Amino acid sequence: MTQILVLNGPNLNLLGTREPGIYGAKTLPDVEADCHAIAAELGITVRCAQSNHEGTMVDEIHAARDTCAGVVINAGAYTHTSIALHDAIAGTGLPVIEVHISNVYAREEFRHHSMIARACIGVIAGLGTAGYELALRAMTDHLKAGGP
Amino acid sequence: MTQILVLNGPNLNLLGTREPGIYGAKTLPDVEADCHAIAAELGITVRCAQSNHEGTMVDEIHAARDTCAGVVINAGAYTHTSIALHDAIAGTGLPVIEVHISNVYAREEFRHHSMIARACIGVIAGLGTAGYELALRAMTDHLKAGGP
Amino acid sequence: MTQILVLNGPNLNLLGTREPGIYGAKTLPDVEADCHAIAAELGITVRCAQSNHEGTMVDEIHAARDTCAGVVINAGAYTHTSIALHDAIAGTGLPVIEVHISNVYAREEFRHHSMIARACIGVIAGLGTAGYELALRAMTDHLKAGGP
Amino acid sequence: MTQILVLNGPNLNLLGTREPGIYGAKTLPDVEADCHAIAAELGITVRCAQSNHEGTMVDEIHAARDTCAGVVINAGAYTHTSIALHDAIAGTGLPVIEVHISNVYAREEFRHHSMIARACIGVIAGLGTAGYELALRAMTDHLKAGGP
Amino acid sequence: MTQILVLNGPNLNLLGTREPGIYGAKTLPDVEADCHAIAAELGITVRCAQSNHEGTMVDEIHAARDTCAGVVINAGAYTHTSIALHDAIAGTGLPVIEVHISNVYAREEFRHHSMIARACIGVIAGLGTAGYELALRAMTDHLKAGGP
Amino acid sequence: MTQILVLNGPNLNLLGTREPGIYGAKTLPDVEADCHAIAAELGITVRCAQSNHEGTMVDEIHAARDTCAGVVINAGAYTHTSIALHDAIAGTGLPVIEVHISNVYAREEFRHHSMIARACIGVIAGLGTAGYELALRAMTDHLKAGGP
Amino acid sequence: MTQILVLNGPNLNLLGTREPGIYGAKTLPDVEADCHAIAAELGITVRCAQSNHEGTMVDEIHAARDTCAGVVINAGAYTHTSIALHDAIAGTGLPVIEVHISNVYAREEFRHHSMIARACIGVIAGLGTAGYELALRAMTDHLKAGGP
Amino acid sequence: MTQILVLNGPNLNLLGTREPGIYGAKTLPDVEADCHAIAAELGITVRCAQSNHEGTMVDEIHAARDTCAGVVINAGAYTHTSIALHDAIAGTGLPVIEVHISNVYAREEFRHHSMIARACIGVIAGLGTAGYELALRAMTDHLKAGGP
Amino acid sequence: MTQILVLNGPNLNLLGTREPGIYGAKTLPDVEADCHAIAAELGITVRCAQSNHEGTMVDEIHAARDTCAGVVINAGAYTHTSIALHDAIAGTGLPVIEVHISNVYAREEFRHHSMIARACIGVIAGLGTAGYELALRAMTDHLKAGGP
Amino acid sequence: MTQILVLNGPNLNLLGTREPGIYGAKTLPDVEADCHAIAAELGITVRCAQSNHEGTMVDEIHAARDTCAGVVINAGAYTHTSIALHDAIAGTGLPVIEVHISNVYAREEFRHHSMIARACIGVIAGLGTAGYELALRAMTDHLKAGGP
Amino acid sequence: MTQILVLNGPNLNLLGTREPGIYGAKTLPDVEADCHAIAAELGITVRCAQSNHEGTMVDEIHAARDTCAGVVINAGAYTHTSIALHDAIAGTGLPVIEVHISNVYAREEFRHHSMIARACIGVIAGLGTAGYELALRAMTDHLKAGGP
Amino acid sequence: MTQILVLNGPNLNLLGTREPGIYGAKTLPDVEADCHAIAAELGITVRCAQSNHEGTMVDEIHAARDTCAGVVINAGAYTHTSIALHDAIAGTGLPVIEVHISNVYAREEFRHHSMIARACIGVIAGLGTAGYELALRAMTDHLKAGGP
Repeated sequence: MTQILVLNGPNLNLLGTREPGIYGAKTLPDVEADCHAIAAELGITVRCAQSNHEGTMVDEIHAARDTCAGVVINAGAYTHTSIALHDAIAGTGLPVIEVHISNVYAREEFRHHSMIARACIGVIAGLGTAGYELALRAMTDHLKAGGP
Repeated sequence: MTQILVLNGPNLNLLGTREPGIYGAKTLPDVEADCHAIAAELGITVRCAQSNHEGTMVDEIHAARDTCAGVVINAGAYTHTSIALHDAIAGTGLPVIEVHISNVYAREEFRHHSMIARACIGVIAGLGTAGYELALRAMTDHLKAGGP
Repeated sequence: MTQILVLNGPNLNLLGTREPGIYGAKTLPDVEADCHAIAAELGITVRCAQSNHEGTMVDEIHAARDTCAGVVINAGAYTHTSIALHDAIAGTGLPVIEVHISNVYAREEFRHHSMIARACIGVIAGLGTAGYELALRAMTDHLKAGGP
Repeated sequence: MTQILVLNGPNLNLLGTREPGIYGAKTLPDVEADCHAIAAELGITVRCAQSNHEGTMVDEIHAARDTCAGVVINAGAYTHTSIALHDAIAGTGLPVIEVHISNVYAREEFRHHSMIARACIGVIAGLGTAGYELALRAMTDHLKAGGP
Repeated sequence: MTQILVLNGPNLNLLGTREPGIYGAKTLPDVEADCHAIAAELGITVRCAQSNHEGTMVDEIHAARDTCAGVVINAGAYTHTSIALHDAIAGTGLPVIEVHISNVYAREEFRHHSMIARACIGVIAGLGTAGYELALRAMTDHLKAGGP
Repeated sequence: MTQILVLNGPNLNLLGTREPGIYGAKTLPDVEADCHAIAAELGITVRCAQSNHEGTMVDEIHAARDTCAGVVINAGAYTHTSIALHDAIAGTGLPVIEVHISNVYAREEFRHHSMIARACIGVIAGLGTAGYELALRAMTDHLKAGGP
Repeated sequence: MTQILVLNGPNLNLLGTREPGIYGAKTLPDVEADCHAIAAELGITVRCAQSNHEGTMVDEIHAARDTCAGVVINAGAYTHTSIALHDAIAGTGLPVIEVHISNVYAREEFRHHSMIARACIGVIAGLGTAGYELALRAMTDHLKAGGP
Repeated sequence: MTQILVLNGPNLNLLGTREPGIYGAKTLPDVEADCHAIAAELGITVRCAQSNHEGTMVDEIHAARDTCAGVVINAGAYTHTSIALHDAIAGTGLPVIEVHISNVYAREEFRHHSMIARACIGVIAGLGTAGYELALRAMTDHLKAGGP
Repeated sequence: MTQILVLNGPNLNLLGTREPGIYGAKTLPDVEADCHAIAAELGITVRCAQSNHEGTMVDEIHAARDTCAGVVINAGAYTHTSIALHDAIAGTGLPVIEVHISNVYAREEFRHHSMIARACIGVIAGLGTAGYELALRAMTDHLKAGGP
Repeated sequence: MTQILVLNGPNLNLLGTREPGIYGAKTLPDVEADCHAIAAELGITVRCAQSNHEGTMVDEIHAARDTCAGVVINAGAYTHTSIALHDAIAGTGLPVIEVHISNVYAREEFRHHSMIARACIGVIAGLGTAGYELALRAMTDHLKAGGP
Repeated sequence: MTQILVLNGPNLNLLGTREPGIYGAKTLPDVEADCHAIAAELGITVRCAQSNHEGTMVDEIHAARDTCAGVVINAGAYTHTSIALHDAIAGTGLPVIEVHISNVYAREEFRHHSMIARACIGVIAGLGTAGYELALRAMTDHLKAGGP
Repeated sequence: MTQILVLNGPNLNLLGTREPGIYGAKTLPDVEADCHAIAAELGITVRCAQSNHEGTMVDEIHAARDTCAGVVINAGAYTHTSIALHDAIAGTGLPVIEVHISNVYAREEFRHHSMIARACIGVIAGLGTAGYELALRAMTDHLKAGGP
């Protein structure tokens, strides 16, 4: 069965407990449960992981080559600076969709640029935690269509 | 019944007939038909419009205040330069989701910045014409949740 | 009798109905009525026009060559990007005063620069809708003094 | 018979009546008459159009797909800012030569950069209204050579 | 009776004696006399001061807290660099209108930016020494309206 | 008893053994002993931690939510680039004081900017290892005053 | 007995009377009294001075060569632009600690850069008026240690 | 008889032998022969020169003052960096038309700017080796019209 | 016997399995075996390490102080952003040669700048995996010559 | 008899007592005495003034209109930032020669740009205190030649 | 027998006689003798040339097409500015390795960027005059492998 | 007898024949004759040279090591771009004074920066051809004083 890695980056373990005005009230376990539910509906499985370590995120993407057909990534703060994540995505060749819970383009200037977007197939931002569901839906369709 | 404006900008009338490698094989009527279909599924209606004129797009957004509850916009080239569209969105107060068919972040530098994103609730890019469907789905949920 | 064109740009048709905290409670018809009243006091006439279309604003300025002795312009969002308006002003040689209702210099960075100011004789910003009256007063004096 | 669109942009309708020191003494009808004359000499026809509206210029380029084999464009002020025109040229795939009457590189800084040049096959600037003739001549040769 | 400080900055003591092509033929005493005349008409008084010293201008604004209801300032060269004047205006909380005799936006690049405008309620530029009268008129209306 | 986290970043484990001209002769254990001593004097406790890993520093800040009332951080090289640390500070809401042993503003250009300072309550730089003591003193006062 | 100059710059005479949300409720005399108190505790004396004039601040630093062993400076707005103060500090060779009451790094962009920091031994920012006390404490230690 | 200098710069001696995809199949002798042919048709003569040395190109322009009425220059790589060529053109006062075989605006960023264009009367780019013919034609007309 | 650390950074564990067009067909174990072979020839030993974690790379460099006389580093993506690696190199004082398999100067703009080069003795780029051999050879000579 | 103002700016009163490596061993009175001596030789008189106050320097230049035929200015730190001095020089129309004792172009980046040079007739930098003599010599010649 | 051009640029004729701290004690003839020696060892020949003239360096690269299989270039100062050298390398299609004796990345900012590196196969910097030997070794291997 | 090289760069051979409004009426032979005359007065000799070739200027500076004690250089257009001249000056260690006839700081932006000034002992600009005399005078004094 097709498996998709849902990979969350730094500080996303704080979801729901802090700054709900920006990030909403759901916790990371809530979001991951939602991902499993939508996966069941879509006839796929998801593997969920979170790390505050850039290197661990690179390791996860590398490991996904053997176990997953695509990645939904919310790289958090590393989105804006990590060439290593960009290279991991480009290097593994996996299709990746970038998700942001908040509308990063309406926040501080340093959140307007993504280092990894150019290696991804697309970006979903500002649609709350529903962005993960939309990304899983789009990834599933993408894989069915034989993309990239 | 809730209505959403699907507003396409300059050159999107060429969809399907040119550069299918970037924009896919569907024509604009195909895309608009898909929007009507998904709208029916979601229990809403959509009004579709396209213009190569920045001013006409501003006019459409103004007019939507009386007839629509939200806007899904692909502002094409005006995305990157139009303060007028930004002000129209901010001025009408309608919730707006920005859509791009291609992954603008993987194309020329001048397509990486959006003048209107900060006035929108979110952005979907790079997921092909399916982005319109995802945006309609997200907008419907947003309106049900009593957003913004 | 001397006639002055009062030309308003994109989104100024929304005046009074949206964001009154920034733009005040007067509607565009209110402002235009005020302009007619002050014109009567000054012994001139005004022609009022508004458009969300950059090209229409250029057309209006061209047309003013035959009917008006000067222009009071609030180019709205086009203020910051329109070389076409700059060239229309420079090309017709009409004296023009630029007006902004809000203090654009205290707002977003992209509103701090005017593309058209260098072709105008002066700028009035931040003094609310009274700016139009001050501009008409200054233009009348300017024309009496045989300016430019 | 091969037809070429000669498309003039904002403020070029003022040709000959204003700033002759920069733009020369010929009016737009004079220039268009010259284009027809050179076309006759070259065994082609030209369609001449002018608009102050960016959107109308996009529409004209789209329409040219069915009626013209190439475009000679003087996009005036939109040269420097219009991604929409760039995309229209790239999207229709028509060969386009960019013309400027004045030497834009010797004028204000903001006239030194062209947004559309990268989508054109070439640029002629500073050679006065004779630039249109040279462009028609070059386009005819380009089309005869089967160029790209 | 309401008093307004009219504060002129560096080199404005040279008014009328140098560069009349830019600044006009009126001397600073002429301009100050005009301010007193318009004040009488408006039913207010003005206090006029001029200094070439940034620190003295800061001192004047501080002192105005006790004696004036608003300030009309032409900060001359300090307009473009003085954070101290910005802070003095913001710190005293007095309403301030910025005036420039010449159209600073049509002069050297370094005159296009104002450090103090963001702390002012508005700006009048390029309308000659009449700008002081317009500013006094606008300030009086502003104070009557219970501004800021 | 109030506890404060003293968190040192990359390369600070080398303190005292290398480049004493810049960083002084004290080792990290010396500095941490000094922190414990001043803590005793101030009636608080400190928890000392050091890591060369950005992710571990984020983890430490997260963990401090349950055990510490504030953080004194010398993020070393990550000061200048880590949005993840900024977000960790902002996300946990703990009061944080940023310390640098050397005067970073007198060193290379790339050390002049701090990504995390805007999320901290203040910064102490250039005062040697005494900066930690001053920061603990200031944090204790801040907490007593019921800040932030 | 060792004397330290506590030198405050433009607008700091307004302390306590304006914008207490940013600068706190203490007046400048309060702060200076606190400095005298801490000086007594540290076995030193302080000389307090304030000026809104950049030149006067330069004069004060020059004069301090004969009477003071170090300087604690809050240069206010001149911090960000004054090369003259930088040169005065470098030219006299006195050890100087820069203090800011507010966290300048969390305020407007133009407050993030200090022209004088590179000539100082260190910086304390954002710790309120307690920053003066910390700076006096650090300066006293610095002088005892035979710095710089 | 009127003579025009056709001056080619660095690497143009490689024409036709390398990168024909960019520069076409004609060799430099072919291009120079074409120039002589068109000159005969136009009733003028041309002097052809090529050098890889910036200084030699300056020398050629100086020498042309005595022998030529105008210059057609393809300065190759020196186009983008040579102030010396700019000064030679401005210093001799000869009318100069700048030619580029390829569309430099569609190539690397560093080829988009010309240091010499502002001293020329015009620019022709992207029209292949036919650009030389067009330039000779335009220069002949320019000289007949008594330009500049 | 002299030992040199060969330290590879993020994604270099993918060598040979992905993007062989850029990085060649050798795997990391192949490259490390080559290093051991050349070391034997040079009469030295090498210690090989690879990590996707910036912090681990810092730890490795710290540890090398006790066991190695020099470092050959390919910091991968961290090359361009890591001040921490720069500081680790500068702080340990070990001689370091930076290696890149591909010609980073011919790739994306963000790969043109190295944060660590200034702390290294030299750089070898673009010569494929042979760069490691050349670096080991150069480092051995450097150490024999009693460098730094 | 022709009089020239020799005007020195901030920190130049420290000459000879501090940083002789940069500024030489002569004190300001020494330099001024040298100026008087060379003036006698040249058959002119000099008026010497120094101030740490930007405003006082402006005042001095204004006053020189009535008493001096030219100005030799070393504006010290104000050279790089003072638009007020620029405007004073331009406004009075006096010929001014800018002098710097040290080679400002070989020092910090912020000393490479002069705000006032464009209003001066020339600049002498890096030739030590002899620069004043050279400037007086050049000014005398300039005045004799009736320059501009 | 395979021949490689070793081409040195401006000021490298001074090697060994000036600034040995940066460039080492070997003279250019010494370096060239070393190149001949290593060539003999590698079974190739080298042709050595040096010029202070950019144009002569371009000429040398052109001439190498007929006589050499590759180029080792130290373009000295022209490295950072010469588009002509870039184009000569790209135009001839010869494989080129760029060498710098000193670590240019640890020197002035203007030495950090190479205009020619993108046209070369690789770069060796900072390894002293041994860099030439390493480059010859790498070039020989490259040619044997049938590169590029 | 001490000899000084007076080295003029590109286009200075045109002196007196072109643009006398900027450069004066003296020809280069006139200027060189003046240099010989002042040299005689100063008890030195001068060697005069001019070239439009950057490489020749480098050669001249190299050659001057054996024959001259210092250099007075007007590098013309190469002033602003030539790192090769900078390196030649730094590499030979000769004292050099940079001269410009016109006030380069009052001309185009690209003339405001000198690449060579940082390697010179000083700069004289804007004082006409008298600048050469002043430079020779200053150089002679410099050499007598045992400079650099």
